[in-house]
Amino acid sequence: MCHEIYVVGMGPGEESMMTPQAMQILEKSDVIIGYTVYLKLLGERFSNKELLSTPMKQEKERCQLCFEKAREGKRVSLICSGDAGVYGLASLMLELGKDYEDCNVTVIPGITAANSGAALLGAPLNHDFCVISLSDLLTPWERIEKRLIAAAEGDFAIAVYNPSSRKRADYLERACRILMEHGIEPDRACGYVENIGRDHTCAKTLTMAELLHTEVNMFTTVFIGNSQSEIIDGKLVTKRGYRL
Amino acid sequence: MCHEIYVVGMGPGEESMMTPQAMQILEKSDVIIGYTVYLKLLGERFSNKELLSTPMKQEKERCQLCFEKAREGKRVSLICSGDAGVYGLASLMLELGKDYEDCNVTVIPGITAANSGAALLGAPLNHDFCVISLSDLLTPWERIEKRLIAAAEGDFAIAVYNPSSRKRADYLERACRILMEHGIEPDRACGYVENIGRDHTCAKTLTMAELLHTEVNMFTTVFIGNSQSEIIDGKLVTKRGYRL
Repeated sequence: MCHEIYVVGMGPGEESMMTPQAMQILEKSDVIIGYTVYLKLLGERFSNKELLSTPMKQEKERCQLCFEKAREGKRVSLICSGDAGVYGLASLMLELGKDYEDCNVTVIPGITAANSGAALLGAPLNHDFCVISLSDLLTPWERIEKRLIAAAEGDFAIAVYNPSSRKRADYLERACRILMEHGIEPDRACGYVENIGRDHTCAKTLTMAELLHTEVNMFTTVFIGNSQSEIIDGKLVTKRGYRL
Repeated sequence: MCHEIYVVGMGPGEESMMTPQAMQILEKSDVIIGYTVYLKLLGERFSNKELLSTPMKQEKERCQLCFEKAREGKRVSLICSGDAGVYGLASLMLELGKDYEDCNVTVIPGITAANSGAALLGAPLNHDFCVISLSDLLTPWERIEKRLIAAAEGDFAIAVYNPSSRKRADYLERACRILMEHGIEPDRACGYVENIGRDHTCAKTLTMAELLHTEVNMFTTVFIGNSQSEIIDGKLVTKRGYRL
């Protein structure tokens, strides 16, 4: 017998931005497992389910709990904010799945902050783009730095995830300095969005020189335009190349 | 008076993957404008609306039609497949909006093929990634080549849009050769997805050496893993770095 487990991207947080596909899978689940903040975002709607969590940094244990519950015969969903396959737990579940041959893992996509944040700012990712996380919890900083340099050299628009945290207050500034050392000029069009899909959402456009000295929190996604990007009527716009 | 126009990402095609937010905005619209293929994907549900289109390559005219209809007092939505801000018409609408000060353009995000395709393959974009289009209709090939090189040098996972068309049958092969010349080894884990969110969806994993000789059509999204990616039980998995 094969136990089906779903890794579900819930989008930015508001129910109106979760797909009907994701919603239906959660509704059919017996058990919903996720980081406590995400379970709270789901709200009252699923209070009739078995809701389980493990503390932050215990992602492996959270995933193993999914397999164990599935083996009890429960229909299990693991929720991730945004898209389950963008800095979410989809890959860890597929890796661990090697040890659970009687379980099958299916990934359900959701809207990730690159896309939901971009929409609030205008259209910053409307040409080739990169997504880079500044978190060095699981990735050596040298690799992050290498990717920032490559993004600048490739003239990509960039969405930056995890630009800051209490222990990494200066990481965004460090990233901006690396980008500027590799050709991104001080007046490059940029923007950031705080609290996407939650209360107190805030979208702001600014230049790279201004971004360099901006303090952001961990609920922020930062956008850096490419060399063709412009701020038009307060919106960050990366052009596709149409002749006007 | 300010006329509101929505640029709506409809996701990959199936209604179950369009957000309730996007659905509600389309339901409240008097006029839905879009490329004919996308209007057809919407199906019968909106047959009571004024549905308008312009031929392919007449994107500027399609956008202008939105502003003209809005000025007639109609509630207008422009639909794009996937996400409106990823190779969609969001940026062109915001650029043209400069000439229509009485109109306000709002972008509604959707699930783009990078995310919906990734979910079908497993988790190929579960670490830093790039999205690159191989279409040189609006972008000089030299710029595409530069971005492919940067993506390889930065060791990004890559989602490739528009990998082929009738006039560009060999573009994917050219792209693969460039990537291989810049360090992507023949056994790099890759994959592709055809017809995401439509009939006859097909997801396949393979190596870079195999991808090089694979013919894909224009309804295909190609995924190239980073140096840490693996094919696990038929799924393309890019690891986040958890210790197992």
